[in-house]
Amino acid sequence: MTSPEARERAVLEAVGERRERVNRAIPEELPIVRPERLYEASRYLLDAGGKRLRPTVLLTTGEALADVSPLSTPYRRFPGLDGRTIDLMAAAVSVEVIQSFTLIHDDIMDDDDLRRGVPAVHREYDVETAILAGDTLYSKAFEIMLETGAPPDRAVEALEVLATTCTRICEGQSLDVSFEARGEVTTEEYLEMIEQKTAVLYAASASLPAILMGADDETIEALSGYGLDVGRAFQIQDDVLDLTVPSEKLGKQRGSDLVEEKQTLITVHARQHGVDIEGLVDTEDVDRVTEGEIDDAVAELESAGSIEYANGMARTLADRGKDRLEVLPDNEARGLLEDLADYLIERGY
Amino acid sequence: MTSPEARERAVLEAVGERRERVNRAIPEELPIVRPERLYEASRYLLDAGGKRLRPTVLLTTGEALADVSPLSTPYRRFPGLDGRTIDLMAAAVSVEVIQSFTLIHDDIMDDDDLRRGVPAVHREYDVETAILAGDTLYSKAFEIMLETGAPPDRAVEALEVLATTCTRICEGQSLDVSFEARGEVTTEEYLEMIEQKTAVLYAASASLPAILMGADDETIEALSGYGLDVGRAFQIQDDVLDLTVPSEKLGKQRGSDLVEEKQTLITVHARQHGVDIEGLVDTEDVDRVTEGEIDDAVAELESAGSIEYANGMARTLADRGKDRLEVLPDNEARGLLEDLADYLIERGY
Repeated sequence: MTSPEARERAVLEAVGERRERVNRAIPEELPIVRPERLYEASRYLLDAGGKRLRPTVLLTTGEALADVSPLSTPYRRFPGLDGRTIDLMAAAVSVEVIQSFTLIHDDIMDDDDLRRGVPAVHREYDVETAILAGDTLYSKAFEIMLETGAPPDRAVEALEVLATTCTRICEGQSLDVSFEARGEVTTEEYLEMIEQKTAVLYAASASLPAILMGADDETIEALSGYGLDVGRAFQIQDDVLDLTVPSEKLGKQRGSDLVEEKQTLITVHARQHGVDIEGLVDTEDVDRVTEGEIDDAVAELESAGSIEYANGMARTLADRGKDRLEVLPDNEARGLLEDLADYLIERGY
Repeated sequence: MTSPEARERAVLEAVGERRERVNRAIPEELPIVRPERLYEASRYLLDAGGKRLRPTVLLTTGEALADVSPLSTPYRRFPGLDGRTIDLMAAAVSVEVIQSFTLIHDDIMDDDDLRRGVPAVHREYDVETAILAGDTLYSKAFEIMLETGAPPDRAVEALEVLATTCTRICEGQSLDVSFEARGEVTTEEYLEMIEQKTAVLYAASASLPAILMGADDETIEALSGYGLDVGRAFQIQDDVLDLTVPSEKLGKQRGSDLVEEKQTLITVHARQHGVDIEGLVDTEDVDRVTEGEIDDAVAELESAGSIEYANGMARTLADRGKDRLEVLPDNEARGLLEDLADYLIERGY
């Protein structure tokens, strides 16, 4: 059995190699054209970095389906299951562009100052430009997804997945906002919310290569399920990391979810176990909270068993996600998708 | 020759009959589902009214192409040129949904209080909800456009038109915002800006039925040109009406473009003819401007010949748009599209 450390190294290497290719493809798909300020703002967050986890899921799923060795086959001319060539990289960039659009608009809605260690787009530019940059990325993602060269019936199905995914992300974000104004939220409600807000884009990332390459419905369904499971596991781990990773490493204030009274699986569990969540941190301003306050809050959540509970749920979901991969040929790329599921819940940031 | 009054009556009747059908279709395509607040906010502006000019262009172009009498054929089961049935109403609603999304986000960017005589969505709800309502309409428009039942190759082309149209609208809005910060803007720059901000959605409305119904490229191109011409004529007339129609009738403060220092063909012309545009209205707050100030400003623009110049340009564009319709069979629906071009520049509001 691989140790978590060895697995993390292998996953980070695999992610890193794909990230470089994705980073090269982004300016090709989204060049800075007139009006330059709009496109610079649209590219700002994409250029600021990011792990490119969703494109990595997409590209690796394609490799597993095509049964080719990882990184052996050009993503721009990738073999479909019927021998037709498709541009898998265009689909990968499209998904990352959607992710970037949602982050830009989310940061406006949450009035967050920092993202990926740099100012949020509405801080670096202004709210107007940030709204418009997000809107531009939105339609560009559709344009880019139309450039895969897949046959029209599969292109239509891919576009349908992309559109319904975006709708569900909006629904999830709306639930997330409405939960902030509510006290009690059930575990089921929370899991539904993160499925829509976060996991559907992982589901799209895992199922789109199957759709574009011409896989059968059972395979598409199973891969979508993998994405839903690991996507939720990822979000739960993200909520844990918000509490446990130092601000410098996180690229934003540690504990900001608590300060902003966001519902997470941790707070949902803690409230059910008698913790006074609203009383954990006094201020509602991330600029005024102290590290000591966050330390005390985390200690209380730990003693209620809430962080352990969240870790356990993430583990269950990741394991279920891995099981769904049995629909794929048993190859190196599939192994990487399994490792990726583990990495998403074991990662330190 | 028809008198402008008779033509206006005929157009308003035709628009009204289609509007009722579009109004019935909107809740079918965009039902209020969970999370209800999000969908209520998404529907708020659509339900507040609107002339449905773009859906009318789309549905009437379909009738002209199919060579059927206006309103004789169900839009939900509309005959394509190859005899296949398509849902033309879905395409019409999709275009109106895009229009509504852009208005919601534009009102946030311009911080406008009123739209269609009711509070803007970000005033009735809040900025967060308005951003998200617009984002939801965005993807819903793509979902709805995928429900026309057109063969996949045509559906892909329609989606391409929709996506590139949205991108160009964003580019146009960005140019519009950047023009506000600039003094001199040339006539060509202004016309390019309104082509992107406004006319491309008319071009999509006129060309989408041709694409979905299976017309040839020449027809698609000519209809797109009709939309670009009448769309620009419409925007120029809109800028004229902002100065000349009483606030109550306009549903917002008359002269608000002047107060907000928006560039219009009128101000571009007036500046070129020595008018001190920045000095026309003292305040930059629409709530503080007086009717007398607007009256004086309009008088100065009139004596510079700027309003007449804008009217002449709108007339030229509308006439050129009508000429492009020669690609269509000579029938009642085509006559209506010609009348519509005239109406767009003759309308009183």
